[in-house]
Amino acid sequence: MYTASDYIVDFLLSKNINQAFVVTGGACAFVVDAMGRNKEFTYTSFHHEQSASMAADAVYRVENSKIGVTVATSGPGATNLITGIACSYFDSIPSIHITGQVNSKESSKYLEANVRQAGFQETDIVRMVEPITKAAKKVEDFLDLKNTLEEFYLEAISGRMGPVLIDIPMDVQQEEVAKFTRKEVFTKKTDFNITKEHADKLNTFFKSSKRPLVLFGAGIGLSNSQDKVINWINSLNVPFVSSWNGMSYFDHCNKNYYGHIGVYGNRGSNNIIQNCDALLVLGSRLDNRQRGGNVDNFAPGAQKLVIDIDINELNKYDETYYVLNYDLSYIDDLTSNIYFNEVDQDWADFIETQKDKYLFKDLSTYHKENNSLSPYAVTEKIVNNLPEKSILIPECGANLCWVYQTMKIKDTKVFTSGGNSPMGYTIPATIGAKLANPESLVFGILGDGGFQMNIQELQTINYLNLDIKLFIYNNFGYGIIKQFQDTYMSSRYEASGLGYSQPNFEEVANLFGFEYRKIESLEDLCIDDLCSNQKIIFDIMLDPNTEIEPKTEMGRVINDQFPYQTDEEFEKNNYFFLKSSDYNRPTN
Amino acid sequence: MYTASDYIVDFLLSKNINQAFVVTGGACAFVVDAMGRNKEFTYTSFHHEQSASMAADAVYRVENSKIGVTVATSGPGATNLITGIACSYFDSIPSIHITGQVNSKESSKYLEANVRQAGFQETDIVRMVEPITKAAKKVEDFLDLKNTLEEFYLEAISGRMGPVLIDIPMDVQQEEVAKFTRKEVFTKKTDFNITKEHADKLNTFFKSSKRPLVLFGAGIGLSNSQDKVINWINSLNVPFVSSWNGMSYFDHCNKNYYGHIGVYGNRGSNNIIQNCDALLVLGSRLDNRQRGGNVDNFAPGAQKLVIDIDINELNKYDETYYVLNYDLSYIDDLTSNIYFNEVDQDWADFIETQKDKYLFKDLSTYHKENNSLSPYAVTEKIVNNLPEKSILIPECGANLCWVYQTMKIKDTKVFTSGGNSPMGYTIPATIGAKLANPESLVFGILGDGGFQMNIQELQTINYLNLDIKLFIYNNFGYGIIKQFQDTYMSSRYEASGLGYSQPNFEEVANLFGFEYRKIESLEDLCIDDLCSNQKIIFDIMLDPNTEIEPKTEMGRVINDQFPYQTDEEFEKNNYFFLKSSDYNRPTN
Ligand SMILES: Cc1ncc(C[n+]2csc(CCOP(=O)(O)OP(=O)(O)O)c2C)c(N)n1
Ligand SMILES: Cc1ncc(C[n+]2csc(CCOP(=O)(O)OP(=O)(O)O)c2C)c(N)n1
Repeated sequence: MYTASDYIVDFLLSKNINQAFVVTGGACAFVVDAMGRNKEFTYTSFHHEQSASMAADAVYRVENSKIGVTVATSGPGATNLITGIACSYFDSIPSIHITGQVNSKESSKYLEANVRQAGFQETDIVRMVEPITKAAKKVEDFLDLKNTLEEFYLEAISGRMGPVLIDIPMDVQQEEVAKFTRKEVFTKKTDFNITKEHADKLNTFFKSSKRPLVLFGAGIGLSNSQDKVINWINSLNVPFVSSWNGMSYFDHCNKNYYGHIGVYGNRGSNNIIQNCDALLVLGSRLDNRQRGGNVDNFAPGAQKLVIDIDINELNKYDETYYVLNYDLSYIDDLTSNIYFNEVDQDWADFIETQKDKYLFKDLSTYHKENNSLSPYAVTEKIVNNLPEKSILIPECGANLCWVYQTMKIKDTKVFTSGGNSPMGYTIPATIGAKLANPESLVFGILGDGGFQMNIQELQTINYLNLDIKLFIYNNFGYGIIKQFQDTYMSSRYEASGLGYSQPNFEEVANLFGFEYRKIESLEDLCIDDLCSNQKIIFDIMLDPNTEIEPKTEMGRVINDQFPYQTDEEFEKNNYFFLKSSDYNRPTN
Repeated sequence: MYTASDYIVDFLLSKNINQAFVVTGGACAFVVDAMGRNKEFTYTSFHHEQSASMAADAVYRVENSKIGVTVATSGPGATNLITGIACSYFDSIPSIHITGQVNSKESSKYLEANVRQAGFQETDIVRMVEPITKAAKKVEDFLDLKNTLEEFYLEAISGRMGPVLIDIPMDVQQEEVAKFTRKEVFTKKTDFNITKEHADKLNTFFKSSKRPLVLFGAGIGLSNSQDKVINWINSLNVPFVSSWNGMSYFDHCNKNYYGHIGVYGNRGSNNIIQNCDALLVLGSRLDNRQRGGNVDNFAPGAQKLVIDIDINELNKYDETYYVLNYDLSYIDDLTSNIYFNEVDQDWADFIETQKDKYLFKDLSTYHKENNSLSPYAVTEKIVNNLPEKSILIPECGANLCWVYQTMKIKDTKVFTSGGNSPMGYTIPATIGAKLANPESLVFGILGDGGFQMNIQELQTINYLNLDIKLFIYNNFGYGIIKQFQDTYMSSRYEASGLGYSQPNFEEVANLFGFEYRKIESLEDLCIDDLCSNQKIIFDIMLDPNTEIEPKTEMGRVINDQFPYQTDEEFEKNNYFFLKSSDYNRPTN
């Protein structure tokens, strides 16, 4: 018998999707069974649905020809997916989530009962995920399912991408249906074009600029236009900086690259963006971590042109921004319309000085003053010795900052869940990455706190025998929170150090079949380990109060970072920018 | 400086709440800090927010003078709470969830931006939890917070109880405010009364009944009326059966107790409820697991009177049910109006026979046929040897069924998350139970699958050195799903046995400071261990295909359970009920 569940599997296969991440349960067992019965399809069992959805989130990030899929049961199975779905939503990652739902006849809708729950484990997952999906629906019958599959798949990959969820009652899963027949291949929906008016604007926008700058956003990579954009930048010789999510898509040795901006951005890069006079933002939503808390002080001397696929993102800007709603997949039409002047010599000197002073330099002070292991030095050693085409997934908190502040990559794929930024992301994401791209070596960097959040998936790694390597930046607590408490709570480390604990990570490694390396000095880190085909946990022993440097604290502009420079030095690094007195630089 | 965060803590203290379960983060750190600074208040750090909310759910279940509270940060912190909040919602458990939110000025609302996310980790948790909370709100300022605290606290404990969530922007948390001063003590809102008409109905309802029965629901316990109800039942000498969630609230040796009904209920109890001619349902929502898939076949020969605090639950019944919307806290007014006849001798004989044959008997066949350890025998030994006033928390799946099908308790508190029933519940719930009631010994029973889902909290148990005992009913897979697959999927164990794995539980025990006992036979289980002050993991080795017996399969009436009886035997046990031919009993 060929059922709706078989149809789902054949549909996915037709879209080049041949695996799913699952935790089964009564209400989704028929779908999982169909996946098991189909020889072309594989599913992987996780030990928590949260990990399945985080792993699915990683799929498109590593291989943008593939889309991650999860299957979970009704009720807690479905709600456990939520945090991972949010990862996809905020970072515009397509992913498909299939949840089982109680039999139609047992649903509160059918019973016309306005109750908390009618069928066992019945939960209104559709309403719950509406704020974090592009589309979510409980299907009524097979016809509905069939149309929804097509429609939602298209929705996930079109326009500003994102996750979708289809909730399927058990009876619908079991319906006997006609076999899937391959239809015309759908292509992304698009309705962007460059009008004459736009073209005129683009033509002239940078004409009078003496200090131009491009901001490279993740939208470039998500639309797979990174090579074209980089070629164009190189041909024009215009300087660019990057958002964190953009950093994975180009070779950092590029001579036009001037680092990454933001609250934890590079000091030099922040000085550069704050001092430019014309800024082209390509595919970045310029969130608070990039512009700082007070957006009025972001690149105050620059005219700004922001190009984004999501018109809602553009509507948020005030009239000092010029905006263009456009899909960077069609980058050629755009770049052919934009001209830059030769870069001004003053500006060339300024940016070069900033780069020399601050980019790819470990200027952190904490480990020197405290004679402890520097996470910056460790990160540099790791990143510089990664095998070709590796995948590196830092998590959140201090460890994430240290990685992005340090890394100089060529062809390494680096990503994290930027906008959602959950602890517990890295372990499942490494699994998703490895399963999506078995040829690459996959590395995770995470804190000792986050390491514990989805620790159960070490069993999945062990069982599948994936040669994943995890670096625990072990500062015995929630490092980034402690630094926050240093500033605002007189270093009372409530729930970040106090009351926090961890198991013995060596025993954890042994338990789950990982090799274990304790790293107390830079020399302890053996670079051969990075190419090995073993799964390894590196326990990197940091001082508990190791700091993130530099860091923009609340109420500051992004180029006025801790550790603080004197007014004199600050002004020397910002001579095109407002004087510190002009914007009332807080005293330190 | 006294802030809104301090106010929250003083407010909670005024309500007799002196602890919270937290995972901190930037957006909630000020609230956690205030909790840390207050000497009368304690917080406990968990290693995943999901566990914090599940632990909070357990608090009211063990001590209904206390209410569980969580604190989590914005974004992933908040969404991680969801599954635990759902536990409280579906089972009417009051709990309070405090989430941090981005600064008001960084919110998409303030920026009038209709974007996926404005502030870092900004997430619309309020909209997401609306389907699973009684009330949820993002507060605008301190005044709003102050009113919301009072209002939501009352909402949580009034009427049909449930969880509430208050989302508090960081700036509001830090506002300097006037000290909390104790107000008049609020009491639950109530607006139930028994009209003359109701009283007349109640008076006569059971007058002509020859085969009366009471169904004891959890609502009795939630309203703390269990002693009154039991006294009343005893004084009238009327037989009663229980729902699973009701079973924790009385001594099972009660001579009027005739077991628990439902899909996995006792065969005898199901026969009794199906054969009664008048049924009084007190505080049970009669969900599908109680009435079976086809509700028309539930107690078909009985006139039914259902008393429930939630009018929406009552509206779901058809005209064959008489319903009364009433709060069982005021049970006296109710019971003083209800009269039963002397129980008919035929009925007395019938129910006694059913009890003799089926109640508190291990009639399971699987272990005998397969010569394996019986989970029923193990459960009996555990339950019979628990110290006085213990707390026992089974999880979900087969292990849950085995416990409820076996247990004969006196003063043991037994509960699980009935309606939501997530894997991963038991470990955090044991922590919540122990912290809410440190004098009691706390025991968890769970499957090897569920054991892995929140395994990180073993570290919390270890760190706090709680003498919790966990029994893993280890059948090497998702037992209840396998049994489902036996029936509907020709025993293809996709994702329940195939592709499932587990770590070495002895090493897990060692890692987290637990003692370990491998239980391969009944004798291996040493009853002294049950009274010890050690934390212990019991690894109970079951055959992978051990079954739940009896079990009502889809399409059957609840008293027609697997393993199937012959038509002859079935009819002998159901002589008041329809003949099997009348309702078309499937052949086996
Ligand atoms: C699920 C979740 N809970 C809470 C937070 C808030 N948070 C962000 S970073 C951080 C500290 C993480 O500590 P650790 O993983 O050890 O990393 P470190 O900062 O020490 O490198 C916390 C609590 C979060 N991002 N995700
Ligand atoms: C979070 C979550 N995911 C999935 C389910 C569906 N489900 C219910 S019971 C069960 C099997 C659990 O296996 P185990 O914990 O080993 O218990 P057993 O049935 O073997 O006793 C599953 C998968 C669930 N209840 N909760």
